[in-house]
Amino acid sequence: MWPDWLAEQAATRAAAGLTRALHPRGPDDAITDLAGNDYLGLSRHPDVRHAAAEAALVWGGGAGASRLVTGTLTLHTELERELADWLGQPAALLFSTGYHANVSLVSALADRDAHVISDAHIHASLVDAVRLSRAQLTVVPHNDVAAVRAALASNPGRRTLVLAESIYSVLGDEAPLVPLARACAEHGAWLVVDEAHGLGVHGAGLVHARGLASHPNVVVTATLSKSLGSQGGAVLGPPDLVDHLVNRARPFIFDTGLAPAATAAALAAARIARARPELAATIHTRIAALAERLEVPRPAGAVLSVPMPSPAVAVATQAEVLAEGVRVGCFRPPSVPDGISRLRITASGGVADDDWERATKVLDAAVRRAREAGRR
Amino acid sequence: MWPDWLAEQAATRAAAGLTRALHPRGPDDAITDLAGNDYLGLSRHPDVRHAAAEAALVWGGGAGASRLVTGTLTLHTELERELADWLGQPAALLFSTGYHANVSLVSALADRDAHVISDAHIHASLVDAVRLSRAQLTVVPHNDVAAVRAALASNPGRRTLVLAESIYSVLGDEAPLVPLARACAEHGAWLVVDEAHGLGVHGAGLVHARGLASHPNVVVTATLSKSLGSQGGAVLGPPDLVDHLVNRARPFIFDTGLAPAATAAALAAARIARARPELAATIHTRIAALAERLEVPRPAGAVLSVPMPSPAVAVATQAEVLAEGVRVGCFRPPSVPDGISRLRITASGGVADDDWERATKVLDAAVRRAREAGRR
Ligand SMILES: Cc1ncc(COP(=O)(O)O)c(C=O)c1O
Ligand SMILES: Cc1ncc(COP(=O)(O)O)c(C=O)c1O
Repeated sequence: MWPDWLAEQAATRAAAGLTRALHPRGPDDAITDLAGNDYLGLSRHPDVRHAAAEAALVWGGGAGASRLVTGTLTLHTELERELADWLGQPAALLFSTGYHANVSLVSALADRDAHVISDAHIHASLVDAVRLSRAQLTVVPHNDVAAVRAALASNPGRRTLVLAESIYSVLGDEAPLVPLARACAEHGAWLVVDEAHGLGVHGAGLVHARGLASHPNVVVTATLSKSLGSQGGAVLGPPDLVDHLVNRARPFIFDTGLAPAATAAALAAARIARARPELAATIHTRIAALAERLEVPRPAGAVLSVPMPSPAVAVATQAEVLAEGVRVGCFRPPSVPDGISRLRITASGGVADDDWERATKVLDAAVRRAREAGRR
Repeated sequence: MWPDWLAEQAATRAAAGLTRALHPRGPDDAITDLAGNDYLGLSRHPDVRHAAAEAALVWGGGAGASRLVTGTLTLHTELERELADWLGQPAALLFSTGYHANVSLVSALADRDAHVISDAHIHASLVDAVRLSRAQLTVVPHNDVAAVRAALASNPGRRTLVLAESIYSVLGDEAPLVPLARACAEHGAWLVVDEAHGLGVHGAGLVHARGLASHPNVVVTATLSKSLGSQGGAVLGPPDLVDHLVNRARPFIFDTGLAPAATAAALAAARIARARPELAATIHTRIAALAERLEVPRPAGAVLSVPMPSPAVAVATQAEVLAEGVRVGCFRPPSVPDGISRLRITASGGVADDDWERATKVLDAAVRRAREAGRR
């Protein structure tokens, strides 16, 4: 039965032109990488590499156990303190992935009696988290504060979480954090802000930049895998929230602690990002110039999203620029909330100036050709 | 509302004596660690440390993106091949945690039309996986093949998964893999075997040892965080299953690839475990002797589970042996399937002979005192 079902599923994907495959890369291919999320180029920063290597030599390959058994390292505590301090939060808790941080936070807070109000563009990890929680779910249109207010008002007296990303991963736009936090405060709700694409790109994150750090109605999640160039995630908020997660979050309790090398890499990267705000400035200069050149709206984050006339043209354009030495991402249904295929271009601060200049020329020409193709 | 609810939850935990807290450890405390899951001591093996360090230097701190974007490294492919080859499976797919491997496999296969039959002692990650899947769930008594057969017969013609661990984490007993596989084959079902505590402890795992590698009705998941001394997980099975997961498993698609250092550490550890079967022999000699000495049944894996008269005595005994330089684990409700608190003692092959000898003496005396206390 299973083999037939798998074959059927594969045939359906193939017929829709939506089959995905993995393309392994080496450590140093000659491609200019504008597809990843290493926004500040810190994954390959010498201090980060050396910190990770040193931790592996001193601590070994893994944490050896779950955090509550014997898998909490003083290295974890050090990174938790550094992140809390940097983001202006009272406390932090590490997870072995950003995915686990989101699933843990929401599923350990929201039970059957709770209400979750989720933006329509929220990340898969938060969607899974809500499903696990069994809370009542209201999905509101993207960035629609009035709809959030209406959902809050419709369920007075319920423990409520409102889910948002500071910068949305596909469209690259910013959440209206200040009005959302105000609405949550008026109703005793908590705003959960996923800073996956905000941290590092906007210093200590957009929550901090908008004056909402340590706001009593705002809780933050972050990944260590994007601007911090490593692996892992974190929840930041009040100490009693951290205690609750330590006692109740299943993907925290029943999972091995974050590996020493990943912890040390993120710690080194956080220190560099804090000390050198000019790294993020490069991103913003680059993305503004590229957005203008490609005639698309300027995004809030490090990722430019360029609509393509069709999934087929998107894939062909991606292949075309790769042949010219530039790697970009490509979003196709079902990974786009509105069904429009896109190129996804990261204005990484880690790319050298002349590589960036060359890449923008290649992209400019390819995007023009793609639009021509769309008009024919 | 949230602060009050958190306070209430904390008070309930405290009243039940079930509050948990983290205890950070340094890289080299003088304690003999019999609490972790680094069964072969490979996390701290020089080759493993050096492989992890070298990978961090060559590749950087992180994979930089999700696997389908630009986060698949040739290092991942190398480890996938090594694991598949070692375990005698046609193909393998890596995940950033063992938790993700379990959640991905089950939630990407079992939809609303599927039936999942789960052993009552199954790990939290598989429980979450089933919940996410929305499949129909039948929980059967622990290691009860007749109950599995009855559940299979009650739902003929349904795509069905049967979930088991090769060695169960809390009780340390073995699943009846051969009869389970036979029952699955008769009904066209797939047996999912989590080798978290079997791999390395029994060479290439119990599925392999029982002659079930590449059996058409058996699929395997594994963690890199226990015998392989690192972080991460894997699914092993037919190539069309791997393709399906690449295209459909949300915790694979929407998660950053496993960090280079963790990948390299697991690869080095797998090569050592394969080349040196005598490492696992130490575990079995030690655990047999300790089980006899403490008068408890001999487990199938590396973990001895010693029932304690009460949660309070369990915690006190754990503290007592720690004061004498021996760290063991402690299971209390709700982490035990049968409500009985236990000491959890790992017969790690990574502990030096004289440390092991001293530790067993300390444990023997403490367990005797605990039993005395229970009789009073
Ligand atoms: C918005 C968002 N949240 C969470 C995650 C998960 O983080 P991680 O890859 O560190 O598990 C991602 C991407 O991977 C993301 O884009
Ligand atoms: C049986 C079992 N499966 C899966 C896992 C999860 O693996 P990981 O810690 O690598 O995420 C664990 C323990 O952590 C486990 O004991």
